[in-house]
Amino acid sequence: MPQTLLKISCPDRVGLLSRLTSFIAYHGGNLLEVNQFTDAIGKWFFARLAIDSQSLALDLPALKKAFTPLASDLEARWTLRESKQKVRVVILVSKLDHCLVDLLWRWRSGELPIEIPLVVSNHEDLRPVVEREGLKFVCVPVTPETKEAAFAQMEALFCEAEADLLVLARYMQILPAEFCKAWHGKVINIHHSFLPSFAGANPYKRAYARGVKLIGATCHYATAELDAGPIIDQEVIRVEHFHTPDDLLRLGRDCERMALSRGVRYHVEDRVLINGNRSVVFRD
Amino acid sequence: MPQTLLKISCPDRVGLLSRLTSFIAYHGGNLLEVNQFTDAIGKWFFARLAIDSQSLALDLPALKKAFTPLASDLEARWTLRESKQKVRVVILVSKLDHCLVDLLWRWRSGELPIEIPLVVSNHEDLRPVVEREGLKFVCVPVTPETKEAAFAQMEALFCEAEADLLVLARYMQILPAEFCKAWHGKVINIHHSFLPSFAGANPYKRAYARGVKLIGATCHYATAELDAGPIIDQEVIRVEHFHTPDDLLRLGRDCERMALSRGVRYHVEDRVLINGNRSVVFRD
Amino acid sequence: MPQTLLKISCPDRVGLLSRLTSFIAYHGGNLLEVNQFTDAIGKWFFARLAIDSQSLALDLPALKKAFTPLASDLEARWTLRESKQKVRVVILVSKLDHCLVDLLWRWRSGELPIEIPLVVSNHEDLRPVVEREGLKFVCVPVTPETKEAAFAQMEALFCEAEADLLVLARYMQILPAEFCKAWHGKVINIHHSFLPSFAGANPYKRAYARGVKLIGATCHYATAELDAGPIIDQEVIRVEHFHTPDDLLRLGRDCERMALSRGVRYHVEDRVLINGNRSVVFRD
Amino acid sequence: MPQTLLKISCPDRVGLLSRLTSFIAYHGGNLLEVNQFTDAIGKWFFARLAIDSQSLALDLPALKKAFTPLASDLEARWTLRESKQKVRVVILVSKLDHCLVDLLWRWRSGELPIEIPLVVSNHEDLRPVVEREGLKFVCVPVTPETKEAAFAQMEALFCEAEADLLVLARYMQILPAEFCKAWHGKVINIHHSFLPSFAGANPYKRAYARGVKLIGATCHYATAELDAGPIIDQEVIRVEHFHTPDDLLRLGRDCERMALSRGVRYHVEDRVLINGNRSVVFRD
Repeated sequence: MPQTLLKISCPDRVGLLSRLTSFIAYHGGNLLEVNQFTDAIGKWFFARLAIDSQSLALDLPALKKAFTPLASDLEARWTLRESKQKVRVVILVSKLDHCLVDLLWRWRSGELPIEIPLVVSNHEDLRPVVEREGLKFVCVPVTPETKEAAFAQMEALFCEAEADLLVLARYMQILPAEFCKAWHGKVINIHHSFLPSFAGANPYKRAYARGVKLIGATCHYATAELDAGPIIDQEVIRVEHFHTPDDLLRLGRDCERMALSRGVRYHVEDRVLINGNRSVVFRD
Repeated sequence: MPQTLLKISCPDRVGLLSRLTSFIAYHGGNLLEVNQFTDAIGKWFFARLAIDSQSLALDLPALKKAFTPLASDLEARWTLRESKQKVRVVILVSKLDHCLVDLLWRWRSGELPIEIPLVVSNHEDLRPVVEREGLKFVCVPVTPETKEAAFAQMEALFCEAEADLLVLARYMQILPAEFCKAWHGKVINIHHSFLPSFAGANPYKRAYARGVKLIGATCHYATAELDAGPIIDQEVIRVEHFHTPDDLLRLGRDCERMALSRGVRYHVEDRVLINGNRSVVFRD
Repeated sequence: MPQTLLKISCPDRVGLLSRLTSFIAYHGGNLLEVNQFTDAIGKWFFARLAIDSQSLALDLPALKKAFTPLASDLEARWTLRESKQKVRVVILVSKLDHCLVDLLWRWRSGELPIEIPLVVSNHEDLRPVVEREGLKFVCVPVTPETKEAAFAQMEALFCEAEADLLVLARYMQILPAEFCKAWHGKVINIHHSFLPSFAGANPYKRAYARGVKLIGATCHYATAELDAGPIIDQEVIRVEHFHTPDDLLRLGRDCERMALSRGVRYHVEDRVLINGNRSVVFRD
Repeated sequence: MPQTLLKISCPDRVGLLSRLTSFIAYHGGNLLEVNQFTDAIGKWFFARLAIDSQSLALDLPALKKAFTPLASDLEARWTLRESKQKVRVVILVSKLDHCLVDLLWRWRSGELPIEIPLVVSNHEDLRPVVEREGLKFVCVPVTPETKEAAFAQMEALFCEAEADLLVLARYMQILPAEFCKAWHGKVINIHHSFLPSFAGANPYKRAYARGVKLIGATCHYATAELDAGPIIDQEVIRVEHFHTPDDLLRLGRDCERMALSRGVRYHVEDRVLINGNRSVVFRD
């Protein structure tokens, strides 16, 4: 069933949900799913409304136009889009394939409602895995000297691909701060630790050294500060004294795949709203 | 902050949430928390609205009266109550104390917003544990011959105690079918297995014999059919080949305490709505 | 490091581990990993000893010969093999690809130390997924009328492929009882429920109807009785009232992949010993 | 069944387990449970052997004497004790009662095989909870000025109580470094975060601010460096955007109780061996 998705956040005030649902009802919209959250501490309102597209009296442009004065009055940040228009996701990888392969399978099987116009890597290794799916693969090497140029080239590629979202599927390069700012809320990273533990390099080695009894992975929005952006999802698994650092790598891969795929899913279904450095996730 | 809680379920139709929130807004109510679920398969609507009591222009009786025509029009099943009026919970136990002790601690610490006017048991064993908390304990022995009379006596006790909810905290007696019907939706049981596996007697022994790798506990509403009522919550824990049946008992106790205390909490905060033999649980 | 793996089970008696470890020490073997379990209820002893192959004074055939008298004295069931000799796994599938794709990825990445001489299916659908990995795919259709002949044909294929293990990766056919007997302990199945709940057909639909709050998957050895063989591993995930039967399918797929891949891993590393209808799993 | 427990760690070498099990067998000992782990990275050997006390030809002092030369030859750190001699645990608390109440219940029910000669607190609040169990409660106030004297007084109390283990059940004082050194491996703390995240003060507030999607608790040995000692066990629970800092406190309490009680159980059953800043835990 085609859905029209309204995602909105604004300062909290009395009667908000009533005004939103009345607006939808006024235009004939049948609500299929409503998620709402009021952050009593931050005094902010967040909502996601899924509307049966066929029940609406207006088409999307008209609906947007009709909604603009209300949104403006509410000082809201909002999006309205149709679910049939799939989110365009560009995946960035280095040499490790587990997250990529998992995303590709979820895309191919229809579990992830996305389009993948492009996969970019700083290495050639994963070209075959991508191209055998009929997808475009571009290798953009990155060295300390060429980093700026490389990111400029990549940004051009992302724009050309009309990317709505970038997914760093174990892409082992730190993004330039400017880039993070420009793509705020549009870059999802998977970090291979249970953040904020072990931010930065070699988290599994450090988890082993610390002797933790659970390891994890964190799916979060990339920001200029490394591994410090809003967290979307996390996954953990128990480990024991007999697990070597290599075992942690192995066990962690499954955590990474689970956390990343869920995080991407939530994002592309408009279920994530950023709340400062926290996130509201209306799970499904 | 004192809250007024509206719990409602009714046949689904267009504009429901709009009508409900508009009603609240009309009476000045500030919504603190809204949970809503539309069962697209069963075509049924479920909602829980927590309203800032102090923002309402009407007191509870007046609000109920004002809401009645709307509810009637919606063919709704509903309750409206004030959170400051704590739910009165009568606990039933036999000889095992782990669930009881846990509930008593959560009550005493204020984690569970309930009153406990009475604890009933078919044995004397747990009297000291109850009475040292300053609570009333009544022993009503049950034998096959006296079962009918015993339950009649207990029902009188429950009514006298003005019980809103009965919690079977490992009460090892099967309730009479008539009793279950009369108290439908008002009796919560903890079963020491991951239902529907191992309904009935000796679930840990049977779990051991079957060689399962996870055991669990199930918190559910009691119905005439044994261990078959709507499930509110479940908890599981991994077990291994080296765990004996006694170990399963030990590990299971923690599952039971967790599932039961959560289930009771959800119920007494009006977060559970029965949906046929399923349940809607608006978790917090 | 090449390992020689001794897997052994026998009636319990005093001094067992001493005799086994002394035997290994006598032949110069350096123990890398020792797992031992005594089933005090069943009075049975289970062990797995991983020996540094290079430290052994004897080659494998000679070691086997030297061990035979001791094993015979202990009335033991045992295997001795070298880890570098990878287990040969034939995978059986129908139309669903998620378990197959996951196993193929774990094989290709080296996480699963197996060889896959053959994939068999009763449908043509997954041929491309298999053949693009350079693996052999054979389609053996099965109808009620041809079932006997089909399984005879498959058994010939398995023997030709020198299969050590069959993995039913959502192979939707019930195996003939004779077949189960002949391949006892050599057929691993993934069932898409948390057994013993929902054995048989349509477990997700039935889980939805029952309103459980956790769903799962079970990896077990196939026996003549459907979904009743020794369990190797299980995985569960929380579900809520808003999850439809389709959501359960989606969430369950991840449980299935995790439980199956772990179960296969444990088996091919000689970490599973069958104990009646239970299993001893020396996890890593 | 009374058990004699051998706990041992020493540099790894060939034939270790054979020598240990032969020693036990030589003295008629029937092994009930054997756990062994070789740290291939640290080149260290760890084992726990549970022996049927009644099968041994020697009494404990004689067995210790007989074992001493072997242990000396192995450069081992070891203990031999009888399980019937319960570990004496002194519990330290401040004002929060959830961990204390849980430990007391597990002690009273026999789940934790310990004696509790004393509970010490820097506040009077929990005296009734302790004394109603018939246990001794001593209040030793601690201020920055009196800290040294207070700890001297407490240490005298611990010695008088013949304490084998101190359990900090949310005791909100930082231990003096000297004290930590003197009691190395004999002080178990519960920290209310998933370490190494949020070491130090106010972990739940900081977890909320960071927006993590799982919170946890860590049971570890106290060392001079705050919250940095060897971890014994950890527990986590999922949280969502709608959970306030108060909700985290509530949910965290259950994590704390689970992790602490398991950690204490493992320790008093001689299942924990310290391996540098890591720990070997032979779970049951």
